[in-house]
Amino acid sequence: MNFRDKLLASSRKNKSLLCVGLDPDPELMPQVNVGEFNRAIIDATHDLVCAYKLNLAFYEALGSAGLTTLEKTIEHIPSGIPIIGDAKRGDIGNTSKAYARALFTTFGFDAATISPYLGFDSLEPFIECRDKGVFILCRTSNKGARDFQDFCDADGLPLYELVARKAKEWNIYGNIGLVVGATYPEELKKVRSVCPEMCLLIPGIGAQGGDLPSVVKYGVDSQGEKAIIAISRQILYASKGKDFAPAARNMAEKIRNEINSHLKR
Amino acid sequence: MNFRDKLLASSRKNKSLLCVGLDPDPELMPQVNVGEFNRAIIDATHDLVCAYKLNLAFYEALGSAGLTTLEKTIEHIPSGIPIIGDAKRGDIGNTSKAYARALFTTFGFDAATISPYLGFDSLEPFIECRDKGVFILCRTSNKGARDFQDFCDADGLPLYELVARKAKEWNIYGNIGLVVGATYPEELKKVRSVCPEMCLLIPGIGAQGGDLPSVVKYGVDSQGEKAIIAISRQILYASKGKDFAPAARNMAEKIRNEINSHLKR
Repeated sequence: MNFRDKLLASSRKNKSLLCVGLDPDPELMPQVNVGEFNRAIIDATHDLVCAYKLNLAFYEALGSAGLTTLEKTIEHIPSGIPIIGDAKRGDIGNTSKAYARALFTTFGFDAATISPYLGFDSLEPFIECRDKGVFILCRTSNKGARDFQDFCDADGLPLYELVARKAKEWNIYGNIGLVVGATYPEELKKVRSVCPEMCLLIPGIGAQGGDLPSVVKYGVDSQGEKAIIAISRQILYASKGKDFAPAARNMAEKIRNEINSHLKR
Repeated sequence: MNFRDKLLASSRKNKSLLCVGLDPDPELMPQVNVGEFNRAIIDATHDLVCAYKLNLAFYEALGSAGLTTLEKTIEHIPSGIPIIGDAKRGDIGNTSKAYARALFTTFGFDAATISPYLGFDSLEPFIECRDKGVFILCRTSNKGARDFQDFCDADGLPLYELVARKAKEWNIYGNIGLVVGATYPEELKKVRSVCPEMCLLIPGIGAQGGDLPSVVKYGVDSQGEKAIIAISRQILYASKGKDFAPAARNMAEKIRNEINSHLKR
């Protein structure tokens, strides 16, 4: 099953637009082994999410052993739930091909995040994997997003909107999505209007302070779908004690229900 | 010793601006184990280079085992030669911090390549590692570089030049460099004029077709230094036979000398 269908199926089954980010940070985690931590979080939340997202930074920080943990975590996720490799990769053609192989074939992610700075030929090896989802960074959730993404041409078109327009043009297989931060509701609204049918991956709720009602209002498509609201820290570290897994479940359930309460279904 | 001094020392010792890219691609390699291949290339070329560059894509494509090979390859490089982690990472603050930890602390690279799309706060955790080199993507060597890097504001300033100007402004510790592709000599000339004292990492010679004389002419600083000319495929795969290591040495020596012949020292 391709990413798009797999996502819709899990989203409908679990009545959820929530994606839990499995980003284990030893500085914030309770004192357990990273692999054990991930397994407990997955076991506690898998009926509440539309997808999981693994940011590779947190695994690479642990060296090759961290990548082994990443592989084991992916294996542990129930097969019906799509897994997004949050990698923000982007390189020249033959290297981008190696990254696509790494993320989609070696690690087995269903989708990946990609940085657009190098242009079309850096994205192409990912897009050519038609069964996989390709989320291009458009408007990121951080403060520094303004530095280059707001850079405008003579007509007042900002770079992030150019990225959205190009992504739409390149979306011949229907497998492209965009990353848009919850912390920029006006830009989210703009991107949704440029790409009314595209799947949006939306980080920035929780620790980063994005506003949930406006994310739901502007982020979902006309069916109240095709938005993946990604939350990591607020769920993973709901408790730093031994009860971290049930605490994560409670928080995930609360957020999933809150998202649904704002949907006009 | 910080990256800048380490680079100058190895460049002067080996009379070389050549950086060999250790990008093992099983489709192009002779039939040996990747770790063995890298060791043989390093043993054959370490007195001819100013630095080595490892593109993480080729290791990630081999999974966690590939990352173990990366760690062993780094260990094998003689201690006086700086090692660049060609990762093109870029993420929000706390994640970027994890990437900086991965590249500089866990793997032990002396420098890394970073993508600017997310802006200053995504680069800051790298820049704050003052002893390390931080190469920000400015003008990449691929055809798709034109898609977004040529995007111009109302005054005709293109994005890649804005990145160069910002990098200069952010370079308070003197550890920032820029990546500029050899395939765009005019843009290289422009970037060198904006940042006369910055170290430039220049890929795109060899397989990608960049012109060596113009790279040397426009890429080096006024002392004929601070340019790292990165070549991978042309050297690694000079022979696909059992003689791959001496063939790589011959090619590396030839290119190193050719670079030097164009220097006005």
